[in-house]
Amino acid sequence: MNRTRLDEHFADLDADGYLLDASQEDANQLYLSGFTGPDPFLTLYADGEVHVLVSGLEYGRAKSEATADTVERHADYDYEYGGREARSDMYAKFVRDKGVESVSMPPRGPVGTADALRERGIDVSVDTGDRLQEVRAVKTEEEVDAIREAQKANEAAMGAAEDLIAGADVAGEDAAGDVEPGVLLHEGEPLTSERVAEEIEVTLLRHGCALDETIVAGGAQAADPHDRGSGPLRANEAIIVDIFPRSKATKYNADMTRTFCVGEPSEALREWYDLTERALEAALDAVEPGATGEEVHTAACEVYEEAGEPTFRTDPETETGFIHSTGHGIGLDVHESPRLASGGEELEPGHVITVEPGLYDPEVGGVRIEDLVVVTADGYENLTEYPVRFAAE
Amino acid sequence: MNRTRLDEHFADLDADGYLLDASQEDANQLYLSGFTGPDPFLTLYADGEVHVLVSGLEYGRAKSEATADTVERHADYDYEYGGREARSDMYAKFVRDKGVESVSMPPRGPVGTADALRERGIDVSVDTGDRLQEVRAVKTEEEVDAIREAQKANEAAMGAAEDLIAGADVAGEDAAGDVEPGVLLHEGEPLTSERVAEEIEVTLLRHGCALDETIVAGGAQAADPHDRGSGPLRANEAIIVDIFPRSKATKYNADMTRTFCVGEPSEALREWYDLTERALEAALDAVEPGATGEEVHTAACEVYEEAGEPTFRTDPETETGFIHSTGHGIGLDVHESPRLASGGEELEPGHVITVEPGLYDPEVGGVRIEDLVVVTADGYENLTEYPVRFAAE
Repeated sequence: MNRTRLDEHFADLDADGYLLDASQEDANQLYLSGFTGPDPFLTLYADGEVHVLVSGLEYGRAKSEATADTVERHADYDYEYGGREARSDMYAKFVRDKGVESVSMPPRGPVGTADALRERGIDVSVDTGDRLQEVRAVKTEEEVDAIREAQKANEAAMGAAEDLIAGADVAGEDAAGDVEPGVLLHEGEPLTSERVAEEIEVTLLRHGCALDETIVAGGAQAADPHDRGSGPLRANEAIIVDIFPRSKATKYNADMTRTFCVGEPSEALREWYDLTERALEAALDAVEPGATGEEVHTAACEVYEEAGEPTFRTDPETETGFIHSTGHGIGLDVHESPRLASGGEELEPGHVITVEPGLYDPEVGGVRIEDLVVVTADGYENLTEYPVRFAAE
Repeated sequence: MNRTRLDEHFADLDADGYLLDASQEDANQLYLSGFTGPDPFLTLYADGEVHVLVSGLEYGRAKSEATADTVERHADYDYEYGGREARSDMYAKFVRDKGVESVSMPPRGPVGTADALRERGIDVSVDTGDRLQEVRAVKTEEEVDAIREAQKANEAAMGAAEDLIAGADVAGEDAAGDVEPGVLLHEGEPLTSERVAEEIEVTLLRHGCALDETIVAGGAQAADPHDRGSGPLRANEAIIVDIFPRSKATKYNADMTRTFCVGEPSEALREWYDLTERALEAALDAVEPGATGEEVHTAACEVYEEAGEPTFRTDPETETGFIHSTGHGIGLDVHESPRLASGGEELEPGHVITVEPGLYDPEVGGVRIEDLVVVTADGYENLTEYPVRFAAE
């Protein structure tokens, strides 16, 4: 955690304190408390100090793990196992004990807690700007190293996926059983999205990373940017592999996408790949401190627009073409500030961002190439070493 | 989803509609919408119908995947990419379009959305009872089958863990390098919690399950019920293995704990294991429709209390003894209703619950045994087939 940046961003807070009620799954909570509590707990920032309140079950671990200035437990406020009202009484007591009569909460803080504190006379406002997100957006060197480590695991997993795809046979006209010609085969069986995803996930686990989802989507499935992919993969189609692992030790994420093809892609796919590689380069060229996320997005869009491909700038309702933003910040969350999109904020040294242009159309397929970079004092450092190539090898 | 049960539980709702603003990570959202959206989206239950509102990027997948009655996208409410105020305007428009002027939200719904709707004249109240949790607590046969499948993967993973532990050598006085005598060895290297956890996780992946955390904790670490464990495992100590995988296909969870020992456990550990096995049996004997979660908890506590071990009933502040509840409901969340604890609610057929007594003391170690059962019309069915044994084999 960057304590100086934290204090700066809370200097103009229009409340006595800042309150989080969340488990470690909430990145703000993990960042501010430094504690991996599996159940929701309270963290209060007030007068430059961070205070954590946990259940007795978590107390020992919280005391040794949390980076907060104080750690207390429910019993310190005479709370035993009880209902919702007793719990809310304890929360109000904890907040007042720190001299706090008004708190600000992030937009996704729980309304149940907010309203319960209001009923107890504590003023609760919503920090619509989500200032902890802004604090988190600029990474310390230690945080960048954590992301770099996760990216190394990511590259190992991408290598395992590409090996499987490149090593596949292609079912011919005389394929056995009900296998369609053109289906990729691994050890005689159809190579499925699920099989490639399993290989990715096992590789990530062996490298200390976990993940919930992986995208391995071919053909028309690849034309839906959020389709995880399922069933047999085929030759001559574009196969999008998008991996976003999280380090189990540090909880920081990495993110990378490559698009592969076995056999002969259509002329359209080949053009799309070249265009997307150029859009990636144009966007990367635009990354530097002082440039805005919108400017980086514009650089990618212009490459596509000049080639006649639709974007949200030329047609806000288009369902084909470049139909997402150019990238996003990444850290404890896979998606966090800054956004590389319309309205995207100014880039600062220490921002870690993805740059990921792509083209989509169910008639053609999908192509996306995504690198992970950190903004530096004079440009950026690309944290991605994995080669960019369409033909799997 | 059990639609009849849903309608029954919403019949006495004191608002025109029930609103969720969450991603698929929220079990209420996944249950009510049937959609695995990775970013927060709105689901509104009103007049017996379920309405979903997603971004254009998710629209195609939501239409084919969601079990909701209607699926709409932001563009249907003239929202393009814009700021927070424009988004809140869209939300209010969507809610009013369904004839809704007042909504109830679950306690952990986002305060930002609640307050934004209030500012736009929509009455927002908090459903302190979290009625969707109550709906979800009773599983359909299909849901029980999904949990059963996840439990099969769990048993395969537990088998892999026990094999590693049982197959370990024990470092002797003449152990090489800086390996302490008594440390378990696997292929000549110290067998660590991390190594066993990795084996568990790879096995789960091969069986279609994912998970964020696994507990493999030996010695004093096992005395903290939420310690995930780290470093070398040792002979003559109790090793707690607690696995809670989630099926990637169905998103339903399973949960099981076993405690193993290699070598000779202390007399105290041996007694604890026997006591815990008896507490498990006593608690299971108490499981039937009409019994309360508190009664099941009492049955486990009494076994321990009669043997002189502290529980939260005899000493609310104890840090040793039986220091957690006897179990919890499980489904789309690992921890959900009902609770097997003080104040725990009445059991109903279709409740799927864990029963997991345990004893903890850093001086002795930790022992926990956990089965997964479904409440039936006349008792329960145990979904756990894994043997209960202390000596790893």
